[in-house]
Amino acid sequence: MFQSRTHTCNDLRMEHVGQTVKIVGWMENVREVGSSLAFVILRDFYGTTQVVLETEEMLASIKGLNKESTISVEGVVRERDSKNPKMATGDIEVVPTKIEVLGRCRYNELPFQVGRSREADETLRLKYRYLDLRNPEVKNNIVLRCNVVAALRAAMTEHGFLEITTPILTASSPEGARDYLVPSRKHPGKFYALPQAPQQFKQLLMASGFDRYFQIAPCFRDEDARGDRSPGEFYQLDMEMAFANQDDVFAVLEDVLPPIFAKYGKYNVASSAPFKRIPFTEAMETYGSDKPDLRIDLTVTDVTELLGDCGFGPFEGNVVKAIPVTDFTATRKQIDKLCADVEVQSGNKAYWFKLDEKGEIAGGIAKFLQDKKDAIIAALDLKPNTFVGLTAGKKGVAQKTAGVLRSKLGAMCPNHMDTERYEFCWIVDFPMYEIGEESGELEFCHNPFSMPNGGAEILDKAHAGEVDPLTITAFQYDLVCNGVELSSGAVRNHDPEIMVKAFELVRLGEDAVKAKFPAMYNAFCYGAPPHAGIAPGVDRMVMLLAGEESIREIIPFPMNKNAQDLMMDAPGTVEQKQLDELSIAIVRHEDDEA
Amino acid sequence: MFQSRTHTCNDLRMEHVGQTVKIVGWMENVREVGSSLAFVILRDFYGTTQVVLETEEMLASIKGLNKESTISVEGVVRERDSKNPKMATGDIEVVPTKIEVLGRCRYNELPFQVGRSREADETLRLKYRYLDLRNPEVKNNIVLRCNVVAALRAAMTEHGFLEITTPILTASSPEGARDYLVPSRKHPGKFYALPQAPQQFKQLLMASGFDRYFQIAPCFRDEDARGDRSPGEFYQLDMEMAFANQDDVFAVLEDVLPPIFAKYGKYNVASSAPFKRIPFTEAMETYGSDKPDLRIDLTVTDVTELLGDCGFGPFEGNVVKAIPVTDFTATRKQIDKLCADVEVQSGNKAYWFKLDEKGEIAGGIAKFLQDKKDAIIAALDLKPNTFVGLTAGKKGVAQKTAGVLRSKLGAMCPNHMDTERYEFCWIVDFPMYEIGEESGELEFCHNPFSMPNGGAEILDKAHAGEVDPLTITAFQYDLVCNGVELSSGAVRNHDPEIMVKAFELVRLGEDAVKAKFPAMYNAFCYGAPPHAGIAPGVDRMVMLLAGEESIREIIPFPMNKNAQDLMMDAPGTVEQKQLDELSIAIVRHEDDEA
Repeated sequence: MFQSRTHTCNDLRMEHVGQTVKIVGWMENVREVGSSLAFVILRDFYGTTQVVLETEEMLASIKGLNKESTISVEGVVRERDSKNPKMATGDIEVVPTKIEVLGRCRYNELPFQVGRSREADETLRLKYRYLDLRNPEVKNNIVLRCNVVAALRAAMTEHGFLEITTPILTASSPEGARDYLVPSRKHPGKFYALPQAPQQFKQLLMASGFDRYFQIAPCFRDEDARGDRSPGEFYQLDMEMAFANQDDVFAVLEDVLPPIFAKYGKYNVASSAPFKRIPFTEAMETYGSDKPDLRIDLTVTDVTELLGDCGFGPFEGNVVKAIPVTDFTATRKQIDKLCADVEVQSGNKAYWFKLDEKGEIAGGIAKFLQDKKDAIIAALDLKPNTFVGLTAGKKGVAQKTAGVLRSKLGAMCPNHMDTERYEFCWIVDFPMYEIGEESGELEFCHNPFSMPNGGAEILDKAHAGEVDPLTITAFQYDLVCNGVELSSGAVRNHDPEIMVKAFELVRLGEDAVKAKFPAMYNAFCYGAPPHAGIAPGVDRMVMLLAGEESIREIIPFPMNKNAQDLMMDAPGTVEQKQLDELSIAIVRHEDDEA
Repeated sequence: MFQSRTHTCNDLRMEHVGQTVKIVGWMENVREVGSSLAFVILRDFYGTTQVVLETEEMLASIKGLNKESTISVEGVVRERDSKNPKMATGDIEVVPTKIEVLGRCRYNELPFQVGRSREADETLRLKYRYLDLRNPEVKNNIVLRCNVVAALRAAMTEHGFLEITTPILTASSPEGARDYLVPSRKHPGKFYALPQAPQQFKQLLMASGFDRYFQIAPCFRDEDARGDRSPGEFYQLDMEMAFANQDDVFAVLEDVLPPIFAKYGKYNVASSAPFKRIPFTEAMETYGSDKPDLRIDLTVTDVTELLGDCGFGPFEGNVVKAIPVTDFTATRKQIDKLCADVEVQSGNKAYWFKLDEKGEIAGGIAKFLQDKKDAIIAALDLKPNTFVGLTAGKKGVAQKTAGVLRSKLGAMCPNHMDTERYEFCWIVDFPMYEIGEESGELEFCHNPFSMPNGGAEILDKAHAGEVDPLTITAFQYDLVCNGVELSSGAVRNHDPEIMVKAFELVRLGEDAVKAKFPAMYNAFCYGAPPHAGIAPGVDRMVMLLAGEESIREIIPFPMNKNAQDLMMDAPGTVEQKQLDELSIAIVRHEDDEA
């Protein structure tokens, strides 16, 4: 397999006993037991093997050598007296005849202990990422990521998709997030931009006659960091299909994702096809969220009619939502904490009462409800020992607060959340238009380039006043897993005429369409196929699979939250000559009087 | 397979006759034969199918519809009266019962005819790349590229390599080509750079404990375009192996590349392992080039001793090289053109003589050689009808001119060049040091970070004056195929002490090493494995496989030679607000008094 070794540090077993072998790796640990006995743990990418030094001569060969130096060990495999069942190679040890130092570690003290690097300060971990990555726990996440990406590629290829790489130096786009700009040397005063996503290119590929495109695509948005968003670049499984509709896209991902999630995930169960499809309005009503965690079996019920006038002030004139939780066992203290947590996260209060073991309404706002006891029990189908969480406010507020309450109740009640699985769903039928909060006028809700359900016809009716534009939905969908939005996607509007009609409803015309994405609009005027796609986030998927909360745990060389690569010292200063060549100058903010 | 069609335009055969099908695609051609008969060629990604419209009603459904519109056709498969053996679906045709227009092409006149786009002006092709790509010939190159990349990935994975993506926003590097810079918003006055190659990251991965890394890596160099170099980005099959030497790297690529070249290439024969290994000095002597095309069976012989003093002025005091070509049939006119071409390309003259059919020295510089006829025939082992090309000059000039002459002779003489194959070789043992032309002092020849053959010991001897530094070779190698350099690679110098010794020979010290690549140098001080790698250019490989001369033929959306994406209009102007956020300003050259 390799010129420099006969086996990896994960290979040797009882069957190798007596063989002469050569292994190489990092000297993870040395334990000297006497002047002529020492145990060395040798670690390579694949595993660890114990090496036993039994002569003064052998001990001398590693005398003064710091841990984390690389060495090669030639020797004979021997059965261990006391086997270590926790170690894959724990049945054997290697008794060396020759040890060679390959790469000396200069330092006796490391910035942190390799095997416990996850406990170290993150700044140190990122600066010495090459030491951090030697920790198998840290490395394993990166290996997981690589395996998941390879599996995604294989599955997409199997489904007839062609991986096509699209340009990274491209044009700045007029909307969306902030672009990273790249000054052009040959065209002074002009700039390339790194793509926020290959959205335009993939649609252009469809107009170019390609049929099933995908790409593990690097995307770039100059936005501040979040827990699940690294500054700089991120990756998505970008895909698009020609002559396809929403169902085609769903069918592919329902086939591709679950086996990969089940195989590589922390949990080994994933939804099978078809995933539950939940219209946006229903998701907000039933789960208080457009990214519901379906591992939680709790749902939200509207109790506005029942409780709006119960006399409890906050319910007065508001929408009221209830989440009943059967077999509830939490303590009063836990309930108080729950309500406090909901308020912190949502900015709105949560309320509650219980139907106690005797079937009495008790606790929380119980005193406002006693009059309606029977009606409440009937409406919510309550059994004894049921907790009912409540939220109130304008419709959206009541819904969203209920969504937060539902998540927290799930996390709190193991009997209502089957944690160890991946539950996918599609959120569908997003509204096409909304009334802008600032403008008070009709605006696009999300993506103006999605196909409206009903096509040209429904838009014509809206123009004619026969249909309320707010009731028009778009063929736009979100893929959600365990409460995490993995991606938005859409059936695209490939028809310039329908595009213009859609824009006219928000008082814009063909010029606005053209101005936004000229290349795409032009291409569509030359005969485009209907097409649809989606782009699940690779980083988010890997985070879910690894069970990691920080995106930096699943990226080989991540930037810190402040958009710096501490190991490479990026971003850095450059030479004046470089700026001159690019026809740009640095503007110091201190001197900036604008 | 798809909701919107039962078959692709490449699926239907005799066995489908009588079936009702639905196909979709672009209306490539319409031939109306009368008021109730028309033939439509429908094209999708997969192929073309003939549709026969036999009623006025059907003809009406496409009346006024421009070619290149997308349509769906439902109908019945029928055996053709006159079959078309050139078309995969040529045995059948579809008789429609329903035709639906999916995407109208607005224009009756296209910028160029799709099927003949390769003949169109390149500027138009790039601006309307989505039309250009509809041409199957153009598309097929892109599909080839995608398939080759997928095959490379599969082969590398099979060889135990893990694909790891490295950062694209990183630090500017102090040497190499010109960087693309990306201004940092959060760190005013500082810049990221796009990586010229993931060189440092892959070596850092080795120091991090990864064992076999690869990546289809995007690389960015802000250099002007060449035939085989696109401005902006290009891709390489970047790979690195820990605890490995030159032979390990060779073994992997000798296993990975030939089957892919044989399967996807224009020619279906490729060298088998092991590839010929030619020391740099020998390559220059024998082929006049460090990227010899081994499909040519001609070699260069040194005839300085034999001909240096023959009396022909240009040979006087110079090195003289000869290339004998047996069974030579070219005319005098062709020979004159050959010599003229060599002079144009190399800047130096080529000379010649022949041993004619009678065994006499004739033509070219024959008159200077008659005295030495027997010696010449013996030394070059000449048979009648052999042409001998000659070059002269200082050693390097004579060699390189001979290299150019050899290539042109190969192209000219089919009996000396087996064109239809891929011939790989390794050029090895590159010199580590040279005397700088400007400085007149010892300098690094190529990459200062390659491991010298002989390690610390040979450097110590050079320091002690016991070894001439100019004789030290590096473990550095080039992979060459059919005269094209696909990549340089090296066993890296992973030992900081040896690095410092290597730098001291060129009058630099540890500070210089550290200054160049601080992260890598720091990492190596914490115990690094010996490692080696290479990075064959994906674009160049695909060009070889496709048999294309322009790199733009094998990139989906290429920039033009002037570093512009004409379709996307990149680079473009940006808003002042964007510049302000990045703390930069545009410097107009007119106003630039520096």
